[in-house]
Amino acid sequence: MLPWKNLILIQKTSSVPVYQQIANSIIQHIRSGVIKRGMKMPGTRELSQLLSVHRKTIVSAYDELDAQGWIHSLPSKGTFVSDQLPEIHPRKLETVSPGNFRWEKTGYNFRINPFIKPSTKPLRDMIGFHDGPDVRLVPVDAWGRSYRSVLSRKSGLHHLSYVQENGNYELRKVLSEELNTTRGMQTTPEHIFITRGSQMAMFMLAMVLIAAGDQVVVGQTNYYYTDRALMAAGARLVRIPVDDEGIDVDELEKICKRKKIRAVYVTSHHHFPTTVTLCAARRMKLLALAEKFGFIIIEDDYDYDLHYESSPLLPVASADRNGMVAYIGTLSKTVAPALRLGYVAAPLNLIAELGKIRQVIDIQGDPVLEQAVAEMFSLGEIRRHMKKVLREYHLRRDFLCSQLKKRFAELIQFKTPEGGLSVWARFDKSIPLPALHERMKKKGVIISSGMIHNTDPKMNLNATRMGFGWMNTQETGRSLEVLDETIAEMRKG
Amino acid sequence: MLPWKNLILIQKTSSVPVYQQIANSIIQHIRSGVIKRGMKMPGTRELSQLLSVHRKTIVSAYDELDAQGWIHSLPSKGTFVSDQLPEIHPRKLETVSPGNFRWEKTGYNFRINPFIKPSTKPLRDMIGFHDGPDVRLVPVDAWGRSYRSVLSRKSGLHHLSYVQENGNYELRKVLSEELNTTRGMQTTPEHIFITRGSQMAMFMLAMVLIAAGDQVVVGQTNYYYTDRALMAAGARLVRIPVDDEGIDVDELEKICKRKKIRAVYVTSHHHFPTTVTLCAARRMKLLALAEKFGFIIIEDDYDYDLHYESSPLLPVASADRNGMVAYIGTLSKTVAPALRLGYVAAPLNLIAELGKIRQVIDIQGDPVLEQAVAEMFSLGEIRRHMKKVLREYHLRRDFLCSQLKKRFAELIQFKTPEGGLSVWARFDKSIPLPALHERMKKKGVIISSGMIHNTDPKMNLNATRMGFGWMNTQETGRSLEVLDETIAEMRKG
Repeated sequence: MLPWKNLILIQKTSSVPVYQQIANSIIQHIRSGVIKRGMKMPGTRELSQLLSVHRKTIVSAYDELDAQGWIHSLPSKGTFVSDQLPEIHPRKLETVSPGNFRWEKTGYNFRINPFIKPSTKPLRDMIGFHDGPDVRLVPVDAWGRSYRSVLSRKSGLHHLSYVQENGNYELRKVLSEELNTTRGMQTTPEHIFITRGSQMAMFMLAMVLIAAGDQVVVGQTNYYYTDRALMAAGARLVRIPVDDEGIDVDELEKICKRKKIRAVYVTSHHHFPTTVTLCAARRMKLLALAEKFGFIIIEDDYDYDLHYESSPLLPVASADRNGMVAYIGTLSKTVAPALRLGYVAAPLNLIAELGKIRQVIDIQGDPVLEQAVAEMFSLGEIRRHMKKVLREYHLRRDFLCSQLKKRFAELIQFKTPEGGLSVWARFDKSIPLPALHERMKKKGVIISSGMIHNTDPKMNLNATRMGFGWMNTQETGRSLEVLDETIAEMRKG
Repeated sequence: MLPWKNLILIQKTSSVPVYQQIANSIIQHIRSGVIKRGMKMPGTRELSQLLSVHRKTIVSAYDELDAQGWIHSLPSKGTFVSDQLPEIHPRKLETVSPGNFRWEKTGYNFRINPFIKPSTKPLRDMIGFHDGPDVRLVPVDAWGRSYRSVLSRKSGLHHLSYVQENGNYELRKVLSEELNTTRGMQTTPEHIFITRGSQMAMFMLAMVLIAAGDQVVVGQTNYYYTDRALMAAGARLVRIPVDDEGIDVDELEKICKRKKIRAVYVTSHHHFPTTVTLCAARRMKLLALAEKFGFIIIEDDYDYDLHYESSPLLPVASADRNGMVAYIGTLSKTVAPALRLGYVAAPLNLIAELGKIRQVIDIQGDPVLEQAVAEMFSLGEIRRHMKKVLREYHLRRDFLCSQLKKRFAELIQFKTPEGGLSVWARFDKSIPLPALHERMKKKGVIISSGMIHNTDPKMNLNATRMGFGWMNTQETGRSLEVLDETIAEMRKG
């Protein structure tokens, strides 16, 4: 008899169920030939005693092996290892070239994109002034319950198949209602196109609306990935100043008189990265200019829901009577970065064209997730979550801003943002941000160098977004200690 | 006192919990002014008696309203409607233009894509010879359990944030092992880039590798959406014949001598749509030609796992020693269409470049789903599922093929496919497929007109893919009855 006790090792602490561990061990030994084809296996009672596990566990392991075709049972005879192992042995190809290629480099050249940097994702396992929501506040229970519930019910089956590329109807319906009640828009579900986060919304709009050489106006400093999506479509970016009331629409008017502008990208609620709100007068002028000069307004309202003062302004889209605006929204900022659900709201002919390009990018979205989130809306889970996090982020904003004012007034200039998750902090020239970033990282606290916002070396930008949403106030307190200490070191020399 | 019993209507059959229904009703009445600001609410005991529900339900409803800020409790005084309603009243914008615009048409023009048709998703609520897996076989329990488990554990938090754009490490690890053990490849997790289904893999490769005007070789008839992704990148398609052994590599060689070919797209395991397998000799010649002429092989192995004969051929990528192949795989065909997980396996420098373009398309993938699927692999759930469906699809293939042979031998020509989910059925000219499609749809059974495979009107293709995976054998039997009947009608007149 084989030394079963030594062959099958069970790790009680493993997350793999014990029956699965036993089955996996047996498969390994059949593969390696230790357990021979056609061999009779020990009975379940016998093996359970040898391994000191419950007999039911062995029965489950054998069931598993049987389902996979490794063993089979003959009534009143016992359990046998299969003669034909269930693994397919593919026919190998002879290689043309000898050698031990490790697939490091392609055998052909390709154009390296000159304007997109390899990503340097901030180290989210370190605390710091990260730009984004606190994932500890995400309603994971409701999300998991809702998702599983969609999968487990019979009517969920049609969410598993090929679906319309404009997205799940239920979710388009709740989003449309949301836009109509909270943002003064007049949409139907047919005006909504669900995307994988606001980035895909931007990317698709650029693919459909922008031709190579088209001139697109963006802020002097602007959201890095929007600029890249526009550039990938061949746009030439025309940068205009952004002051305390948003993008400078008078400057925009002058430019429009001089050259043909195809589109203007605007984050009206809070300009990215400077957090300023586009004032009402400029919103109306922007819309009037669009009508006059025929340019498209791409309004990216990525954080409309994150507002701590009483009266946000309605988006430009709410006043659009001539179909000049393509509106972008997202749930990634308000729920979780990993919840990649965004949308475009736009006139119907544009929605139809987006549907064509979407087929080519990834066929369709994620109907299970979309249905689950639609149900979280209907059950009030999203609204409840928003109220909770708004209260919390409001507190966190006030804490960071009061501390910055009290302790860093001479070195850091900022205006308290009306919403969002970050403060736009302009540092004194004596504290160069790239150096500060490096020094603080060594101490385990992240502050962005802000270099990504520096669209032109001549700008000499020494400013960054300091996130207040990602950390609780204790963590922010600790991070500010490290900031204080590091700045002191830097000033000493 | 307000007529609470009439104000708050409870639907016992609704899927919305009763406490939620009560809270929603109260919110509605506060909004409309029926319930006044500052008003004292009835006690929970009192309201529970009035509405004939359990008191706990009222407590839950009040908790909900409190959490949302609609009401608040004063100790020993009672519960009151808030003076400041928790709704933000945004400041409206005056519209520039009068009128009641319904957002039907944009106020500007844009280029209508000439080569992508608006999608006509087949009616999946009708039975028929759909091309795709049977969603009723999807392991929804394991999937839902696994997904929820990732969300519910503490270590799941880092899957909720921004992550690397090449995808979840655990999933890349299991996919790499899978490629190495089942397909003779030599990959590490660093060679794998996870995408949203094979379509996004194709789209990204086209964006990175193809420049406007590049000539790309594809089969005479080829997967519709691959052609579109290539065309969207500006490729000029060069079509070559496909016979019973796959694409004609001798013809390819002749073309390469005449003009510069940038890439060849091949579905080696089963050519789409004709289901033929690229034979071993042609695989090796294709690779040799790639090395000689410097073209890229894009090998799309979308259904490698769906194989019913004993010895599939290893993919071309398994013999690649010079980095000529970019390999595409997917889980959408094997698990569920809505599980949009695919991947590219390729040399490291290409993987890095894909990471740049991915940031622009949608920032990153879905880390929660990817982790959940990685765990389903580790637990053997995917392997178990595959064994189960392979057995079933094998049966279904044999059933459809034997029926076609027995009953339609004169009118439908086909070869039994070695794998996949569909039969490539060439119909007699006397049965034009578009007409057959229309007639059968009226009877509630779908058969594709095949027009999507007709890349050139001169081809006069009267062939289509008849899916055998989507239906069980009873359903296929019924559908064949309708086919029989409809053909008889068409031949009569």
